[in-house]
Amino acid sequence: MILIAERINAGFKDIAEALRERAKGPVQEWARRQTAQGADYLDLNIGAVSKEPSDMRWLVEVVQEAVSTPICVDSTRVPVLEAGLDVGDGRPFLINSTTADPGKLEQVVPLAAEHGAGLIGVAMDQRGSPQDVDRRVENAAQIFAVATDAGLAPEQIFLDPVLMPVRHMQEQGPNVLEAITQYIMLSDPPPHISVGLSNIRSGTSEKKLITSTFVAMAMARGLDAAICDVMDDVLLNVVATAELILNKEIYSDAYLRAFRMKRGSS
Amino acid sequence: MILIAERINAGFKDIAEALRERAKGPVQEWARRQTAQGADYLDLNIGAVSKEPSDMRWLVEVVQEAVSTPICVDSTRVPVLEAGLDVGDGRPFLINSTTADPGKLEQVVPLAAEHGAGLIGVAMDQRGSPQDVDRRVENAAQIFAVATDAGLAPEQIFLDPVLMPVRHMQEQGPNVLEAITQYIMLSDPPPHISVGLSNIRSGTSEKKLITSTFVAMAMARGLDAAICDVMDDVLLNVVATAELILNKEIYSDAYLRAFRMKRGSS
Repeated sequence: MILIAERINAGFKDIAEALRERAKGPVQEWARRQTAQGADYLDLNIGAVSKEPSDMRWLVEVVQEAVSTPICVDSTRVPVLEAGLDVGDGRPFLINSTTADPGKLEQVVPLAAEHGAGLIGVAMDQRGSPQDVDRRVENAAQIFAVATDAGLAPEQIFLDPVLMPVRHMQEQGPNVLEAITQYIMLSDPPPHISVGLSNIRSGTSEKKLITSTFVAMAMARGLDAAICDVMDDVLLNVVATAELILNKEIYSDAYLRAFRMKRGSS
Repeated sequence: MILIAERINAGFKDIAEALRERAKGPVQEWARRQTAQGADYLDLNIGAVSKEPSDMRWLVEVVQEAVSTPICVDSTRVPVLEAGLDVGDGRPFLINSTTADPGKLEQVVPLAAEHGAGLIGVAMDQRGSPQDVDRRVENAAQIFAVATDAGLAPEQIFLDPVLMPVRHMQEQGPNVLEAITQYIMLSDPPPHISVGLSNIRSGTSEKKLITSTFVAMAMARGLDAAICDVMDDVLLNVVATAELILNKEIYSDAYLRAFRMKRGSS
């Protein structure tokens, strides 16, 4: 399971403040903590308010100073993504994200190809979020086709079926699971499949239980990546256990500890 | 999710003793406790040692005295199953189990048809436990064919893909999940799919975590029944959450309480 740590996001007050004041401390602290928890990538997001490429440039540089963990630049704005990629020090990068909107695809896919970065493709399009399985599959297939035409390998492509809050859009749960099953049939080897995991628990009373139950269910269908709260130990224990059941990790009585040791403790 | 409560089994010391001494107390106490937890069926098993049809007859009568919960008679011996069914008071019964062994099928299937009972069909055969997906599917299809020929409806048939301990037979986890996917394609409406859930955790250090993670994964593939420990609140909470995600129950902030109230509190 590829864990993309969500916490360095200016949607959180401490990160917004650090960004505004150019205070490295909180950013580097979260970089270290999430790395120690076993993050495979650190997602960096300057928030909905800022449009400043220089904000992303600063975030990437500050994180690169602190840890060697791969980075996921996260923005809806192409110049912001580009600014982050431009200061990359050679470690692996992931771009979060493109949609199937042709105008978006034609800007973001070349950026990934040029920088050798992985790419998250969210199964939305110019009409907005998908409400059924078919549109999730059409949009993802479109992203996959454009990305592979541009030279990206299947394992550089992360397809996201658009997870929605169980509280408000409960009927979309089965659609997301079914879309995952169809995504893994797109190629051999299959692309990665990723979700913004915290979306599902939005506004609910049982956040950890809902998140961890969903991740087990989605892993049983083929999910192998998630943007998520890596500080959530319930989630990490369920991920470790699901990998065991899928025969991707070896059982030992200390498998939970082994999972952590293998991943982190940097 | 159909929960078949496993605790009235002479493999447990208190039940073995109660059976030997014809002491109703412990049996009726477990019947009430498991019913209150929301059991859909109470599994009754006289243990590996006893071969006495009169033991099963006594168990069924004693349980029927205490609760109105449906009963699942559980034995490898046909006369034992028959003794339990014969004293049934008209409530729904389930038979646990037949295998795909022709000698077994030809004895147990008519018993189910004659008593109007549901039937658990375990995907084993005269050669033993299946080690791959194909044999799991062949055996289940064979059971399904014989049972429907005898007049059982798909919804009276519970196919069991043979869950094995993750500690010793880890490679069988993905095979069980894949078999479930194939079982739901056997008919429309599909048969029920059931496992002996506690098998997976045998000998492990993280029993509740492994059991509940597996059940979420299997429910995402189509599992809708399990013989299990209904006293395990972690398990019940995950089952309730998985039903939410599958859009089979409606979200409310009190959905865990609603799940319990709907099922039990007798």
